[in-house]
Amino acid sequence: MSEYSRDSRYITTRITADGRDGYPVEPGRYRLVVARACPWANRMIIVRRLLGLEDVLSMGICGPVHDERSWTFDLDPGGRDPVLGIERLQEAYFKRFPGYERGITVPAIVEEATGEVVTNDYAQMTIDLSLEWTRYHRAGAPELYPEHLRAEIDEVSELVYRDVNNGVYRAGFASDQDSYQKAYRRLFDRLDWLSDRLAGQRYLVGDTITEADVRLFTTLARFDAVYHGHFKCNRTKLAEIPVLWAYTRDLFQTPGFGDTIDFAQIKQHYYEVHRMINPTGIVPLGPDLRNWLTPHGRESLGGRPFGEGTPPGPTLAAETVPAANWVS
Amino acid sequence: MSEYSRDSRYITTRITADGRDGYPVEPGRYRLVVARACPWANRMIIVRRLLGLEDVLSMGICGPVHDERSWTFDLDPGGRDPVLGIERLQEAYFKRFPGYERGITVPAIVEEATGEVVTNDYAQMTIDLSLEWTRYHRAGAPELYPEHLRAEIDEVSELVYRDVNNGVYRAGFASDQDSYQKAYRRLFDRLDWLSDRLAGQRYLVGDTITEADVRLFTTLARFDAVYHGHFKCNRTKLAEIPVLWAYTRDLFQTPGFGDTIDFAQIKQHYYEVHRMINPTGIVPLGPDLRNWLTPHGRESLGGRPFGEGTPPGPTLAAETVPAANWVS
Repeated sequence: MSEYSRDSRYITTRITADGRDGYPVEPGRYRLVVARACPWANRMIIVRRLLGLEDVLSMGICGPVHDERSWTFDLDPGGRDPVLGIERLQEAYFKRFPGYERGITVPAIVEEATGEVVTNDYAQMTIDLSLEWTRYHRAGAPELYPEHLRAEIDEVSELVYRDVNNGVYRAGFASDQDSYQKAYRRLFDRLDWLSDRLAGQRYLVGDTITEADVRLFTTLARFDAVYHGHFKCNRTKLAEIPVLWAYTRDLFQTPGFGDTIDFAQIKQHYYEVHRMINPTGIVPLGPDLRNWLTPHGRESLGGRPFGEGTPPGPTLAAETVPAANWVS
Repeated sequence: MSEYSRDSRYITTRITADGRDGYPVEPGRYRLVVARACPWANRMIIVRRLLGLEDVLSMGICGPVHDERSWTFDLDPGGRDPVLGIERLQEAYFKRFPGYERGITVPAIVEEATGEVVTNDYAQMTIDLSLEWTRYHRAGAPELYPEHLRAEIDEVSELVYRDVNNGVYRAGFASDQDSYQKAYRRLFDRLDWLSDRLAGQRYLVGDTITEADVRLFTTLARFDAVYHGHFKCNRTKLAEIPVLWAYTRDLFQTPGFGDTIDFAQIKQHYYEVHRMINPTGIVPLGPDLRNWLTPHGRESLGGRPFGEGTPPGPTLAAETVPAANWVS
């Protein structure tokens, strides 16, 4: 196979307000399992925080480096998740589906009492946090997937997924020159398109943060640190694309976005795990990240980041990214 | 071995005006063999051109990709150098030293009549073009290694060699994290030092181009295209270090420098040959190179690029880098 193809068969069980799949929304019943390195998991970390669900949906954090079989809880004392009591996320998958053969992926939601995985369907999971967990949203939680914008959010997200979120992987995991070049061109064409779209408006869909921004952000946050060099997405750095760079810093500096990013773990994950494209496992010291906090000037476009809502408060102490993992 | 160490045992035979090693300077007697990809060979291409030695010292050009054994003349019709009649540079080494076991490196100078390699001692070779071939320099040739600046040129060149020219290789070929980090830090510390030095003066040693500039230039010209990503020298791109970037463009836009650079061959060489750090052999499409011709503003520092001399004329038709290899 020459072109990288993502296995998109996920566990599609949903946690809903009406509990129609057997898993009703309920405070304290589930544990979200993430890895800070992973852009798909990062979406959930952000949305959970923007909606203020930290106290109703707990979070376990896997380390940045996994092996062939599973993400592991190597950051926790004793290498076990303190709530689920497991060492490997795989155990929660096997508990529900003995011999599960597809990818052991994050984000995943596990039912605490049974220790069984409920879902790893990342695209549905953020939407469900917005639409099914509403009863438990914090006061001032933003509407990330409002009905009147849904068609546009879906349309943009589909293009962003194909060419950007998954596009960087298609470039980086290409096994021949042609597949790589095709992915590279689609990626940068799409970034140019996004840049044009964002030149005159603060956010991807209208003047308020939506699900579409969350989805784009988690890829852009990793762009210069990983995708530019490791995945050969090197027409320019993000920092050399003025509009997109300002847009990304704007989000980064918004509570709920930058405070979820662990650059050290991100770099460690990609460079140590993908030995087929980085055989030495050496993790680059760069890039210099101090520029992430420079003024972005996007306020001049107007816009209301949280619409009728308000920014989230500070992160939970246990979930705060160590300052040392910030600027490397 | 964890730290990369360059084999610095070269063939130290010299071609001199007095012919004391048996190889006197003589027009038409020798052929310089280079590869455009190689930064060490690039020095010779530049100096030969600045001094106007094209008609007295012919040049054979190997292709960008070599195998374990040798650089090859795969760009030439029939895959043979038209003057030496050989397919592999190795043949000229073996002709003089049967079973030669050290690296078959460019630049090398071969005696045309015997087909024997004379020298591959790249550091001495450029100096000898300046000091031994003077009788054949063009009218208006610059003094690249003037006596009164020699000590300073040597001193700067030694630091540049250790931390920059060879430093990028020490970073890129490190086999463990510590060796890499040490090389990275020395490299960027030295680039900062160079940046400070060049902030108020146009060239590395005084206000005129010298051998020291040639030696620094060939590494800087490859920085964003190769060393930044492939060798993990990624604190910043050269394009993000304002003084050094302007200095490099200033030289690039000076006849004899930029017209020797073949970005396509440079990228092809590093990414295709070093499979131990790029197993797929895929060559990145980036970076966008159009910025190399933007104004650099260094004229405001004064300086006389060629001192009492003049710029070289156009490149020989046969030695002109194809426009297609320019902006990728």
